[in-house]
Amino acid sequence: MKSNLHRRQPKDVDNTGFSPNSAAEGSRLINKDGSTNLRKIGLGIFERYSIFHTLLRMSGTKFLSLVFLFYTATNIIFAFVYLAIGIDKLSGVEASSNFLTNFTQAFFFSSQTMTTVGYGHVAPHGFIANAFASIESFLGIITFALVTGMFYARFSRPKAYIKFSDNILIAPHKEGRAVMFRLATYKNNHLTEVHAEVTVAIHHLHDGKRVSKFYPMPLEISRINSLAISWTCVHYITEDSPLWLMRQEDMRDARIEFMVTIKAFDDNYSNTVLQRTSYNYDEMVYGAKFELMYKRSDAGDVTEVMMNKINAYVPHAFVEDVVENA
Amino acid sequence: MKSNLHRRQPKDVDNTGFSPNSAAEGSRLINKDGSTNLRKIGLGIFERYSIFHTLLRMSGTKFLSLVFLFYTATNIIFAFVYLAIGIDKLSGVEASSNFLTNFTQAFFFSSQTMTTVGYGHVAPHGFIANAFASIESFLGIITFALVTGMFYARFSRPKAYIKFSDNILIAPHKEGRAVMFRLATYKNNHLTEVHAEVTVAIHHLHDGKRVSKFYPMPLEISRINSLAISWTCVHYITEDSPLWLMRQEDMRDARIEFMVTIKAFDDNYSNTVLQRTSYNYDEMVYGAKFELMYKRSDAGDVTEVMMNKINAYVPHAFVEDVVENA
Amino acid sequence: MKSNLHRRQPKDVDNTGFSPNSAAEGSRLINKDGSTNLRKIGLGIFERYSIFHTLLRMSGTKFLSLVFLFYTATNIIFAFVYLAIGIDKLSGVEASSNFLTNFTQAFFFSSQTMTTVGYGHVAPHGFIANAFASIESFLGIITFALVTGMFYARFSRPKAYIKFSDNILIAPHKEGRAVMFRLATYKNNHLTEVHAEVTVAIHHLHDGKRVSKFYPMPLEISRINSLAISWTCVHYITEDSPLWLMRQEDMRDARIEFMVTIKAFDDNYSNTVLQRTSYNYDEMVYGAKFELMYKRSDAGDVTEVMMNKINAYVPHAFVEDVVENA
Amino acid sequence: MKSNLHRRQPKDVDNTGFSPNSAAEGSRLINKDGSTNLRKIGLGIFERYSIFHTLLRMSGTKFLSLVFLFYTATNIIFAFVYLAIGIDKLSGVEASSNFLTNFTQAFFFSSQTMTTVGYGHVAPHGFIANAFASIESFLGIITFALVTGMFYARFSRPKAYIKFSDNILIAPHKEGRAVMFRLATYKNNHLTEVHAEVTVAIHHLHDGKRVSKFYPMPLEISRINSLAISWTCVHYITEDSPLWLMRQEDMRDARIEFMVTIKAFDDNYSNTVLQRTSYNYDEMVYGAKFELMYKRSDAGDVTEVMMNKINAYVPHAFVEDVVENA
Repeated sequence: MKSNLHRRQPKDVDNTGFSPNSAAEGSRLINKDGSTNLRKIGLGIFERYSIFHTLLRMSGTKFLSLVFLFYTATNIIFAFVYLAIGIDKLSGVEASSNFLTNFTQAFFFSSQTMTTVGYGHVAPHGFIANAFASIESFLGIITFALVTGMFYARFSRPKAYIKFSDNILIAPHKEGRAVMFRLATYKNNHLTEVHAEVTVAIHHLHDGKRVSKFYPMPLEISRINSLAISWTCVHYITEDSPLWLMRQEDMRDARIEFMVTIKAFDDNYSNTVLQRTSYNYDEMVYGAKFELMYKRSDAGDVTEVMMNKINAYVPHAFVEDVVENA
Repeated sequence: MKSNLHRRQPKDVDNTGFSPNSAAEGSRLINKDGSTNLRKIGLGIFERYSIFHTLLRMSGTKFLSLVFLFYTATNIIFAFVYLAIGIDKLSGVEASSNFLTNFTQAFFFSSQTMTTVGYGHVAPHGFIANAFASIESFLGIITFALVTGMFYARFSRPKAYIKFSDNILIAPHKEGRAVMFRLATYKNNHLTEVHAEVTVAIHHLHDGKRVSKFYPMPLEISRINSLAISWTCVHYITEDSPLWLMRQEDMRDARIEFMVTIKAFDDNYSNTVLQRTSYNYDEMVYGAKFELMYKRSDAGDVTEVMMNKINAYVPHAFVEDVVENA
Repeated sequence: MKSNLHRRQPKDVDNTGFSPNSAAEGSRLINKDGSTNLRKIGLGIFERYSIFHTLLRMSGTKFLSLVFLFYTATNIIFAFVYLAIGIDKLSGVEASSNFLTNFTQAFFFSSQTMTTVGYGHVAPHGFIANAFASIESFLGIITFALVTGMFYARFSRPKAYIKFSDNILIAPHKEGRAVMFRLATYKNNHLTEVHAEVTVAIHHLHDGKRVSKFYPMPLEISRINSLAISWTCVHYITEDSPLWLMRQEDMRDARIEFMVTIKAFDDNYSNTVLQRTSYNYDEMVYGAKFELMYKRSDAGDVTEVMMNKINAYVPHAFVEDVVENA
Repeated sequence: MKSNLHRRQPKDVDNTGFSPNSAAEGSRLINKDGSTNLRKIGLGIFERYSIFHTLLRMSGTKFLSLVFLFYTATNIIFAFVYLAIGIDKLSGVEASSNFLTNFTQAFFFSSQTMTTVGYGHVAPHGFIANAFASIESFLGIITFALVTGMFYARFSRPKAYIKFSDNILIAPHKEGRAVMFRLATYKNNHLTEVHAEVTVAIHHLHDGKRVSKFYPMPLEISRINSLAISWTCVHYITEDSPLWLMRQEDMRDARIEFMVTIKAFDDNYSNTVLQRTSYNYDEMVYGAKFELMYKRSDAGDVTEVMMNKINAYVPHAFVEDVVENA
């Protein structure tokens, strides 16, 4: 290993939002999906969760199921209410001695009221039944007003739709090495003015306790005009880099973690979008290069981006490592 | 107390939006919730209030109650209209000699029309009843269209969800003192690129009249990348600080007020959010330090942010004050 | 009048979007409401107008009337359709020999279908009547979906709600004069980070033809943190100012026009808002000062902004003008 | 041709998002509508397309047709369901031996259920028919909630509404030549703070293979305050320009392509909008000048922008070319 003498110490930063001793043993600071690996305690669940944020971020299937569940549950509750009022107050229903028959008829009347379909072959009779029907139809409209709003919020929520390579590579670059990962948009959206910012977290053992330090990792190109094909972000490991002279085992020992933030302007939404991810040591490949992920189409008229090759790399051993390990 | 000789006079600023003589005796400029302590007069109420802003900012319960009230009131009005037209014009209704019976039947017909449930066991008969029913159903749809829009506007309204510490502390820092307050997000939202800006208002007595001066309070770190755990904003009281050499009683006499603005980017909304607050003298604790508000979870895999400890501090007397007060 | 000898010529700018010869005689470039005084020709009306922009900017009353008109017109059209199909195809309707009776019944059936109230005492019979009813109810839902969207767009449209003083004043300032106008928000919205930009258009006669030149008018304070009370924008007329040494009649001859743009961040909407206006020579008051437009409330606890005094000024003759005119 | 001796080599840039060998023979990088001429492969269709983006960008007619198609298809499916359950379970329907008669009646019942018009002259009978009717009315409401959201998203989608001139001209300018194209907004929208950025792609043949280089093309004015009339973007071909000394045939050989990005703030939407286009060699006119596209109105009170003249130019041969070609 080369001499450490002339090493310029890179400056660590303290504006990451994480603290020097926030790193839990064996875990990451940023999850792969970009969320922070934190838990908030000491708050009631309603205080801690934003219902809106939760509904916004759940999967579409889950959201639709939840709405259907709410619809069914509300109808069940109102069915019981109408039964309590008396099945004879729903004119058009033939009262039965069978509870289930009465219940289902009340349930269907409720659903006709809540959705405002109101066929009318069953209709409320008397003050109390009418009052509850009046409330239920109001509730139905309010519910579906809320759902309409949520739908819009869900599918209009700006998203970057960026796919990152699974691995971060230590690849040969110029006269030395570089840290490289790549990304591409996988949907028919278009990002312009794309900025990338990478911070590396190095968790050194200090008197048996891990102390975290954070360093910015300057990229060779940190802003591109348009994310047209794919973008390989390159941090060249120079003397100024926090990774200068770190060997593979040093990185593992320091439980190194790369925190990545991509910020861009979405042409369709006319909005700024942001996506984050992180790479920890296990996702680092030492001595490898990415394969090209685009080619000219067979017809020759268009460039094809091969999204399935975003993770493809070829090994590329470093001479000095071979010597060193010998 | 140290000599005031070499004091460099910090420059006050006049771009706060407040004027030198805007400070009302004994009151604050910015309320705790971040609104300005102002009243606009000389305008009609409709000119002064934006209905939209008002509906947007009221509590959810209040908003829903208002909508329900509107629904009920509209039905009452239309019930009177249908009665005026003649209860016999609502076919399916058995006209009664009891006014209340007729009224409730007209009311329920109205509600069935407004919500468009339209069972049809009661239906309008004749030109006038039909015309009003036609108008009411139109009105109903328009109302619920408005409510749908308001719902969306309400829950999609970007909010920072920041909780500030109740107190601002004068705490020991480096070789001197610093002003400190802290903040954390209390919901499952995530803020990035968080900026803090603090302005201090000092209201000196001048010929028996209060004159307000405003000074920026530079923070040691005024921008963090991510509001992950919590953030303690620190203004180190150096010679350049407007608070340099001010004692506890000086601050009280000057009715000092710290105006805080936090601006950040919300990852979920992809929007810039802003939250303000202020601390006045009564909320200042002289000689105290914040306790740590995060810890490693028992399982060791995650960092826990203890939101219930955001206000926790320990007293920490200053030696020089003790000497001085002796 | 002072010598013009040492006048430094201010640089005009050509990035205003207006051209040197765009000034039409006797008219302004920017209207009071901030729109440009331009007309686009050579395009079809549908190409030229964005329906959305038009619906967005019309008054609320106009918009509601338009929706009601559309509702009525659609019902009239469908009433004719149902009559054409045959009034007997609407079961529940007693066919009459009176056209108007039949028409109104068809009209009301149409309205019940379009709003989906569907009482059912009148119902379509046969394929053709059913098909049109099916189309109409679909159309109704689509229409009200559009209206819902428009409502939301209308009342969520970010607006600055800024009121400008009617006049721009040439007022005494420091050792000379300044151009001043003022502004305040008149609704319960709150603007932060407020920027003002003023450009002056000077239309000199040049060989009998007006040539327009545009100059930036630097303000003493061009950005305030918060538009709390009111803001008096001040351009101090120094040697560098395009107005240096211009007399009242020079300004009139040059058909001087001040184009004002205010840009700010709205706390409630979390959005950037922009409002423009302009002042031409007729709206300039030469030799006057604004009166204070805020005061402490009688109770002393709050600052009151007197919006009805935004235009209030007191005359203030300039000594040198008096001398000059003598 | 002049000597190339003192040519300063302009620096090419590598942050365009395109790669040196991405140019497919005979095709362009950016399409006229601003989209990138790329294809993403190796992904499933649902992974590749964002349904929301697709619905957002299709034409209004196409979108409405799609919704109507969905409405019809859903009704056909449910008609079959009701037939399978048994036409006798729809009370009010006279069962017919003719399949088509039964089918249309089931279809219309379905449509009355889905739109929630629910006349009630036909109503579901028994558990299964009621259950499906209940599901269908729920589905209908959810569908129209989605459509409402999509409508809003579609017409509130910020768009720049910029029309570019069809051609890019090489025009005489100052003592040399300049590249010029122009643009204007064609709707009643208003853009402020308009930025233009032009990058030129030059695809030189290198050992029989095309290598693409990208150069920024600095404009004389790259930002205007307001896009009031029209804007002619001018790149003056100086020694620093990548086009310096390139003749008409050089540009053709290099398959030159100008990539244009306009970014602006829309006053009505209070949003940033972005529009892109490109000009390739075929759209370049060598030796021509744009005609004026605005005039004073006949009444003299307003400036008229003649949108139909945006492409109008007059030929203007260059002396040196004439000499050269002689």
